Amino acid sequence: MNDRLAGIYAASITPVDEDGRVDVPRLLGHLRWLLQRGCHGVAVFGTTGEATSFPVAERRRALEAVVEAGIDPQRLMVGVGCTNRDDTLELARHARGLGVADLLILPPFFYKNVPDEGLYRAFAEVLDGLDDGARLVLYHIPQVSGVPVTFPVIERLRRRDPVRVAGIKDSSGDLGHTLRLIDSFPGLAVFSGSDRHLLDNLRRGGAGVITAGNNLVADWSRRVWDAHRAGRAAEAESWMTKVATVRAILESRPVVSALKAVLAAGRGDPALERVRPPLVELPASAREELLAELDAAGFSYEPADFTAVAD
Amino acid sequence: MNDRLAGIYAASITPVDEDGRVDVPRLLGHLRWLLQRGCHGVAVFGTTGEATSFPVAERRRALEAVVEAGIDPQRLMVGVGCTNRDDTLELARHARGLGVADLLILPPFFYKNVPDEGLYRAFAEVLDGLDDGARLVLYHIPQVSGVPVTFPVIERLRRRDPVRVAGIKDSSGDLGHTLRLIDSFPGLAVFSGSDRHLLDNLRRGGAGVITAGNNLVADWSRRVWDAHRAGRAAEAESWMTKVATVRAILESRPVVSALKAVLAAGRGDPALERVRPPLVELPASAREELLAELDAAGFSYEPADFTAVAD
Repeated sequence: MNDRLAGIYAASITPVDEDGRVDVPRLLGHLRWLLQRGCHGVAVFGTTGEATSFPVAERRRALEAVVEAGIDPQRLMVGVGCTNRDDTLELARHARGLGVADLLILPPFFYKNVPDEGLYRAFAEVLDGLDDGARLVLYHIPQVSGVPVTFPVIERLRRRDPVRVAGIKDSSGDLGHTLRLIDSFPGLAVFSGSDRHLLDNLRRGGAGVITAGNNLVADWSRRVWDAHRAGRAAEAESWMTKVATVRAILESRPVVSALKAVLAAGRGDPALERVRPPLVELPASAREELLAELDAAGFSYEPADFTAVAD
Repeated sequence: MNDRLAGIYAASITPVDEDGRVDVPRLLGHLRWLLQRGCHGVAVFGTTGEATSFPVAERRRALEAVVEAGIDPQRLMVGVGCTNRDDTLELARHARGLGVADLLILPPFFYKNVPDEGLYRAFAEVLDGLDDGARLVLYHIPQVSGVPVTFPVIERLRRRDPVRVAGIKDSSGDLGHTLRLIDSFPGLAVFSGSDRHLLDNLRRGGAGVITAGNNLVADWSRRVWDAHRAGRAAEAESWMTKVATVRAILESRPVVSALKAVLAAGRGDPALERVRPPLVELPASAREELLAELDAAGFSYEPADFTAVAD
């Protein structure tokens, strides 16, 4: 269904077991829940998914298990960007082998202030190593990675390969930047990384969102999407307000830990709270405050609704 | 000789072959040259060594080859810090298995603004996985990693394990910070990452330097060290001025590319210029300008002097 590379995506959390490994059964349960709650797709092993806290072999193992358990690889976007070409290509080819087309790719993120030429080369050598069916979604999250994906680099990459350089996730939190991307690169699927920008993104012709908040409110985001497409502007705005409120509540916390705390509480499953260092779990008092704020914002955890259609 | 964990270290460059892999013969040649030029030890796979641009398997392979070729593992410090525990431990244990004691460890460097508790846990779980003979040298290079190694974290780690938490490399470029580290943590080997701070470091009781500049001027740095220890202050200062001048010339360039350009020119070996993306080689004009500035500063490349003694 995602030929167009667009929609409501959750940037999934990654449950962790007692040994610090990916907790595959809980990941699988969460992905199913997200798809049933209305996500067009789910991005795994992004920033919210603590991707960089797991080694390549662990990320491969988890993705394999997820696809073998029946999650449609066409509805997955997989984070593959590492600091070196070999790891990035290993993850990307592995995902391709499982039928995943969409690859979310961080720039190499150790060195800072790197020249555009170097950044371009880093992406280009990944492209050189991938098959024709791969679709790269460039990952712009400078406040975390420290390495912006600049306009000149996007332009060169698009000139080189307008099909496989298919999208960008703009997690800068700067709506103006997102709108400039949409205006500047027709045909590029521009996703917002902030839930706040969903409706602005869609109105400008963007591709949608890939967000942390959708771990909780994918169903609301989906209502924004559906209402927007049906031309029901007031309804879209009304849901948008609710989504933005939840996002604001999350943003004032360490987001990954906050999401896991809420999901753990909702599912009555304390194991879901675990994060990998260098992140830490929310203290109990902070968790209670968070849950109270979300409750006041109208959010309540709902178990998976297996009859929902996620198209 | 390095029971004390102190001295003049070069943070070695890593030569790269045509396929982007570690060029082991050239790395070996360079390490031998550095040791012959007066380095007490050499740090491999740090920032100057483009560590993060190579996958774990490649770093293992190169280190193995270097030790098998006869480089004394006691004179090596090996960069092991990755964004995840498993990769860090794999590199650290591998180095330990080869007889390397000193492990230079970056904090997990993807997430920013992480709490001290999370940073502490990340280092602690590495300590938990290592044997008694390992010596961690914490790597503080916030302008690149984006993640400072804070005083409270150092303090907790030292309390937990005063033997194995043996040192820190302060590459912040902030001399005041280095001096505070020396004053605050008696018994901790505090290395400066800037060549400029060598003599100030030694005078305050620091452990020495681990620097990019020593890829070129290890012999001068060694003269600073020797003169300082012999109480010949004027001589130490005189050599220090020369070292600082070269450092200033390097600092106004992309340092890794600049070092490789100078070494390639000195050895008449253009292959040495190669860097991995996201770094790029110096353009020819910039290289000529750099060589002219170094020449004016009194630097000239000298082939290995196989009779030099490196104590």
